Amino acid sequence: MRYKMIVAYDGTDFHGWQTQHRPGRASLRTVQETMEKAVAKVVREPITLIGASRTDSGVHARGQVATFATDNVIPPEKLIMGINSWLPDDVQVKSIEETNTTFNPIDDCTSKGYKYSLAHGCSNPLNKPLFNRRFLAHTAYKLDVVKMQEAALHFIGEHDFAGFTKLNHGRESTVRKVTGCSITDLENWRISIDVSGSGFLWNMVRIIAGTLLEVGRGYISPENIPKVIKSCDRQKAGKTLPACGLSLEWVSFN
Amino acid sequence: MRYKMIVAYDGTDFHGWQTQHRPGRASLRTVQETMEKAVAKVVREPITLIGASRTDSGVHARGQVATFATDNVIPPEKLIMGINSWLPDDVQVKSIEETNTTFNPIDDCTSKGYKYSLAHGCSNPLNKPLFNRRFLAHTAYKLDVVKMQEAALHFIGEHDFAGFTKLNHGRESTVRKVTGCSITDLENWRISIDVSGSGFLWNMVRIIAGTLLEVGRGYISPENIPKVIKSCDRQKAGKTLPACGLSLEWVSFN
Repeated sequence: MRYKMIVAYDGTDFHGWQTQHRPGRASLRTVQETMEKAVAKVVREPITLIGASRTDSGVHARGQVATFATDNVIPPEKLIMGINSWLPDDVQVKSIEETNTTFNPIDDCTSKGYKYSLAHGCSNPLNKPLFNRRFLAHTAYKLDVVKMQEAALHFIGEHDFAGFTKLNHGRESTVRKVTGCSITDLENWRISIDVSGSGFLWNMVRIIAGTLLEVGRGYISPENIPKVIKSCDRQKAGKTLPACGLSLEWVSFN
Repeated sequence: MRYKMIVAYDGTDFHGWQTQHRPGRASLRTVQETMEKAVAKVVREPITLIGASRTDSGVHARGQVATFATDNVIPPEKLIMGINSWLPDDVQVKSIEETNTTFNPIDDCTSKGYKYSLAHGCSNPLNKPLFNRRFLAHTAYKLDVVKMQEAALHFIGEHDFAGFTKLNHGRESTVRKVTGCSITDLENWRISIDVSGSGFLWNMVRIIAGTLLEVGRGYISPENIPKVIKSCDRQKAGKTLPACGLSLEWVSFN
């Protein structure tokens, strides 16, 4: 039997989703390894978890999707109680359902949505995040949100995002299709940047967010975004914003 | 010149407000010591901070009030920027004003308000706090909030709260006046217990919250609360709930 889970986690204290084997050294704390151990306790056999997105160190999720197969058939409502009771406080299974045996959350994924949360105008201490600082990046600059909203639209569409990734070894295509990119102006100097698409390059959302921040500061004009993208030059795009502001919100499938 | 500050902090990683001197050993991380160091950097002389409430280890504050005196007169708007720039991420000065030289936040305090935040029904994993777990206690039981609201009213008034404190050595009066005690039923199985009064005994709010939890479970009936109070017996009251759910919300003065 194969099961499909929706998983949420506070990524602050995890070294990302994917288990990192380090021969001869203790393994780093990852969501995948933590969850594999919890599931194994319940199904009473070792399992391998496949996640839709290999979120980076410090990145959160409200809607990660992961799957595993086991010979032990357990009703989903028992499985969710069991797994959650073995999981630490910073990761939680939100739902479990049975799925077809061939389901693969990487290959079958049609679209993913990320949210980048940012506090601006934080040179004023009253605007700096305190209680939700684990889930919100911050900048001292006051941002022009209307300009950022205008600029965001230019990311939508199929583009070569070679300039918007950490590692570009040129061996694989860096063309990706962004289906949504919008900015919500929230109260108390908070904004959220919602980006969706069929697939993303490494650090792509955090570099898009960093480039939009430069637009908000007035360093890049909204009309120049297409040129920045076309340049395929990492130096022309903005900085990679911190992991704490990013959350994988949802994943959809065929 | 004497200054009065409103201070907010995430108490998770602090050993409470008050500096604890431990001869021959490294001092524990407290809000008072952390803030005294930051203020000293800005006013360029050592200062002593007096806080209105000595919040316990792990307890949060949105409205702690603290004061210090210095010979260096600095405009409040410069002072707040300076102090906040020296403070770590988990404590923040929300406002500063000049005050009269005799102001003492302990002696001049007329009333304080605390909020206890609790998630119930957490045997269902979907109700268990994840992203806000640092600021929310939780219980597996589903609570009868209407009964708790009825019971809360019985705490209002002047009573001997000898049964609602951790340490009762009988040397000082344990009579306190509670001016408000109410429960708000929030969405997603969250409740908040708001307690205000002129003064509180050690752990008093957390034991009131624990006693109201027993009412919600059906172990104590609302009509029996006056008897529990009158008994002055710690055993008759509920458990002390965890520090993480408690926050000092406001302090008022003459």
